[in-house]
Amino acid sequence: MAVRYTPPTPESLLPVPGIALGSAAAQIKNWTRDDVLLIVAEPGTVAAGVFTQNRFCAAPVAICRAHLNVQHARSLDFRALVINAGNANAGTGEAGFEAARTTCVSASRLIDCAPEQVLPFSTGVIMEPLPVERVVAGLPSAQAALRQDGWFKAAKAIMTTDTVPKGGSRRVTIDGIPVTVTGIAKGSGMIHPDMATMLSFMATDAPIAPELLATMTRGVADVSFNGATVDGDTSTNDSFVIAATGKAPIEPITTSADARAAIVNGAIESVAIELAQAIVRDGEGATKFITIRVEGGHDASECRRVAFAIAHSPLVKTAFFASDPNLGRIISAIGNGGAADLDPAGVSFWLDDVMVVDRGGRAESYRDEDGLRIMKQDEITVRVDLGRGRAQATVWTCDFSHDYVSINADYRS
Amino acid sequence: MAVRYTPPTPESLLPVPGIALGSAAAQIKNWTRDDVLLIVAEPGTVAAGVFTQNRFCAAPVAICRAHLNVQHARSLDFRALVINAGNANAGTGEAGFEAARTTCVSASRLIDCAPEQVLPFSTGVIMEPLPVERVVAGLPSAQAALRQDGWFKAAKAIMTTDTVPKGGSRRVTIDGIPVTVTGIAKGSGMIHPDMATMLSFMATDAPIAPELLATMTRGVADVSFNGATVDGDTSTNDSFVIAATGKAPIEPITTSADARAAIVNGAIESVAIELAQAIVRDGEGATKFITIRVEGGHDASECRRVAFAIAHSPLVKTAFFASDPNLGRIISAIGNGGAADLDPAGVSFWLDDVMVVDRGGRAESYRDEDGLRIMKQDEITVRVDLGRGRAQATVWTCDFSHDYVSINADYRS
Repeated sequence: MAVRYTPPTPESLLPVPGIALGSAAAQIKNWTRDDVLLIVAEPGTVAAGVFTQNRFCAAPVAICRAHLNVQHARSLDFRALVINAGNANAGTGEAGFEAARTTCVSASRLIDCAPEQVLPFSTGVIMEPLPVERVVAGLPSAQAALRQDGWFKAAKAIMTTDTVPKGGSRRVTIDGIPVTVTGIAKGSGMIHPDMATMLSFMATDAPIAPELLATMTRGVADVSFNGATVDGDTSTNDSFVIAATGKAPIEPITTSADARAAIVNGAIESVAIELAQAIVRDGEGATKFITIRVEGGHDASECRRVAFAIAHSPLVKTAFFASDPNLGRIISAIGNGGAADLDPAGVSFWLDDVMVVDRGGRAESYRDEDGLRIMKQDEITVRVDLGRGRAQATVWTCDFSHDYVSINADYRS
Repeated sequence: MAVRYTPPTPESLLPVPGIALGSAAAQIKNWTRDDVLLIVAEPGTVAAGVFTQNRFCAAPVAICRAHLNVQHARSLDFRALVINAGNANAGTGEAGFEAARTTCVSASRLIDCAPEQVLPFSTGVIMEPLPVERVVAGLPSAQAALRQDGWFKAAKAIMTTDTVPKGGSRRVTIDGIPVTVTGIAKGSGMIHPDMATMLSFMATDAPIAPELLATMTRGVADVSFNGATVDGDTSTNDSFVIAATGKAPIEPITTSADARAAIVNGAIESVAIELAQAIVRDGEGATKFITIRVEGGHDASECRRVAFAIAHSPLVKTAFFASDPNLGRIISAIGNGGAADLDPAGVSFWLDDVMVVDRGGRAESYRDEDGLRIMKQDEITVRVDLGRGRAQATVWTCDFSHDYVSINADYRS
């Protein structure tokens, strides 16, 4: 189902020294698949994360933030991550916090660390009590299943409405030493990361100082997950965590001025963009993958607003589904997303290489059959030039299909 | 198809002294129905309007604004309105402006007034050239058809994806004299008026001073059309004009301090709310009508942001379609729309009289079967209490169905 996305294979996801992954079937929902994942990092690992801006953030998100703060403040290692699928533990009040804490305490006892060294993730239905006793009961089996090459099974254990597992790896060489970056993600609906139920966990064996890792994580999120949208709904649970185990035998990387930081950051960014695009390609009911690039703005935030106005318009999304070059809908969306002082007479846009609008009006050269030809593709780039500056932003989205409605009308049943 | 909306009958739309309406079949599209409407007001009529905030506003919207300014500046009467269905004359560049001007000039010659005394409206597909010669050719037939009791036929002539015509009337007594307010509207998709292709024209025979009428128009739009949303897409063509003919033999109403202003405003507001709701009830593919009332906010704009975040969430809208009490989606939408400092622990919400969330968590009393019972209704009120102030706002929307996708995937074909 996913649009032009080749899912990872067990072999394509490279082990990261210092990281082991194991999953178990804990029956969080009435299913038999693995749904609890334990990721364990060896001592010496640091982690950084970015989380949803939704004000109703889930209990595990709040606990993640707090535990990362404690880890940074007390220079505690990051030791483990517990992810359950099937229940988001969001909108669950005090009982939800208690459940997330219980998960951490339980994992910390198994691997002999402090509860604050464990991060909890949850994904699934919102506002149902998390059956935490099942999570806890599943952890010993997950621990017994821990393997360094467990990334592929891990990617499968965290799926909800995803049709394919999502993961990617890069290997770069630093100081003559191979350094690995591997990440997994899940997400298909409620996707508009403002960091969605998008979860991603990545790890590298590069030795990266905690402050630098935190800065890298925010920067990578901005050019990857934060540019992805399926339905414009920012989830209560979005979480993106990168762990750096430091197992690669190279000198620690402590500042972005270090040329090696750019190499690692490039590898991380590349995996993150692949995963962010994979989520959109596997968007609920998606039949097309759309890249929206807005250039020529005063600033990047203006470009993002216009790009998201196009990406979130149900009328634009249904036109893509129908392969209908109803391009007035794109014009209208640009007009809604643009700043109050945006002059339409400066705006142009293209579908792939076909100019549609030339400075405010239909391009002389535009023919409906050219628009139709592009719209029939399963991968399309909309490029907009706002004609008033040098800033730009890129956003990825998918179309709105009958299957989107079916998937979301039937989700809980 | 419209959810619990009884369309007007020819008899239910009361004539307004001083206003005559006539339509003609001008083949703006390949159809045989009437699609050009001429409304003529007798000398002595003043008009005020509010228009889309979309930066790519249509040529007729720009011309309407300019002509109303000229009317006010030079104390010129409002004399006529020309509305065509089938083409929005938006995204059409300079040729579009020329077409809108030609329409006004043509109508002004027929009724012997200045072009600035004529307002043009268009609705339909965006970014196709308006066949203005057809509009012009249709005007004499429309003029020959002018009747004071022409409101019902007028309401039908301006429909696009609407399944029913929309109109309403009120009669109030002022100084012992009956005063009439009648209005018509069209709109079903691209509906999120930020003054949508929502068009509404209303008239009264009350003698209202121009400045007061302008103030009333903005105020009425805020509590009516600006609270309606189908798909969250603000159109390029939204226009709402009220004309006051002054034919009722009462003393002029010049200030909102005049108690009679409140009576007329009440009647206008009542028709406007009925029409705004009618547009949502006839929303593309709508099977349910949802009222979202957000109370307890710091200010009205915060309440509106939360209400629209719920109203625009595709996940919330598909859950309504499915009658699925997947209420976590509403929690998530509140969290997205709320201010950065919104405390979830203060937020409660109800489905009709069923409390779902009690100050941040699932209400003790809430049972899934109660939620299901309400969700199965075709008319539902979501009431949210933000728990931090006294402001409130109300918004109306509809669900997202398979028919929504079908209608918008097939619109141009």
